[in-house]
Amino acid sequence: MEPVTYKPIGRIETPYTSREGMPIQAKGGEGIRGRIVLLPAYAKGLQDLGGFSHLILLYHFHLTQDTRLVVTPFLDTVPRGVFATRSPNHPNPIGLSTVRLIEIRETVLEIEDVDIVNGTPLLDIKPYVPAFDHRQPERLGWLEKAGADLQQTRADKRFI
Amino acid sequence: MEPVTYKPIGRIETPYTSREGMPIQAKGGEGIRGRIVLLPAYAKGLQDLGGFSHLILLYHFHLTQDTRLVVTPFLDTVPRGVFATRSPNHPNPIGLSTVRLIEIRETVLEIEDVDIVNGTPLLDIKPYVPAFDHRQPERLGWLEKAGADLQQTRADKRFI
Repeated sequence: MEPVTYKPIGRIETPYTSREGMPIQAKGGEGIRGRIVLLPAYAKGLQDLGGFSHLILLYHFHLTQDTRLVVTPFLDTVPRGVFATRSPNHPNPIGLSTVRLIEIRETVLEIEDVDIVNGTPLLDIKPYVPAFDHRQPERLGWLEKAGADLQQTRADKRFI
Repeated sequence: MEPVTYKPIGRIETPYTSREGMPIQAKGGEGIRGRIVLLPAYAKGLQDLGGFSHLILLYHFHLTQDTRLVVTPFLDTVPRGVFATRSPNHPNPIGLSTVRLIEIRETVLEIEDVDIVNGTPLLDIKPYVPAFDHRQPERLGWLEKAGADLQQTRADKRFI
């Protein structure tokens, strides 16, 4: 299978200048404002997007320097297979966050509930649609027993 | 911003040999079986994944040949900005589907509820976790008025 090359479509600006101390998921970043600065070439693709209250962002974890197949997640104390975690050290370090859309002004999107480090290259924007995206899992693996608090837990240096 | 290159971690096998006639979202593919064949090099990353009932798959829309900034979605009759749709013709054609995990045998993952064409290169696997991924949007843009039925609508040739 051939490698795939993507060109970032813009950049995500947030108050987080480093990963340390960041919320570990968008739900832990409630109320935190950020901004997407889209490249002007893609402006027409934003048409109709302002009608959605929530967006799925796919982005490149540009600070991640190595793949690890086993990691100890922020919410646990036990090493886990990386695909069973949301750590950035996946073989392809693609981040996924659902954020609130506040406003679009030309090619700038004001967003809220961000858990993304400043300067992150953005790969894609999709509308968040419960009819497409919501599931009711019966099993949540190691997370069922993880006692850590998602809202309160903050990132440390382990994945940098 | 520099281009980003990812190497597929495996391949997705499904009953859909072409995009035409496929369900347009994983929820329209309920009960349809598929299989992930992961490259053996990533086997250790699967540890602990079997405990989760639902997985988020990120994959490359390898059949998509062109970017379109405005598209008419399957569920609508009006052209929309591509970022406001889930069409494959985004500037970076990255697919996102949440599927049910049935069983893992070594590096083969049996999955269900697939809306993915056979042979699709897989980029990433993440556990689906409602505490991370679930939102309750107030606004769904053009989809609020789209009358088409998600379960019944099937893809045609428009995005190939």
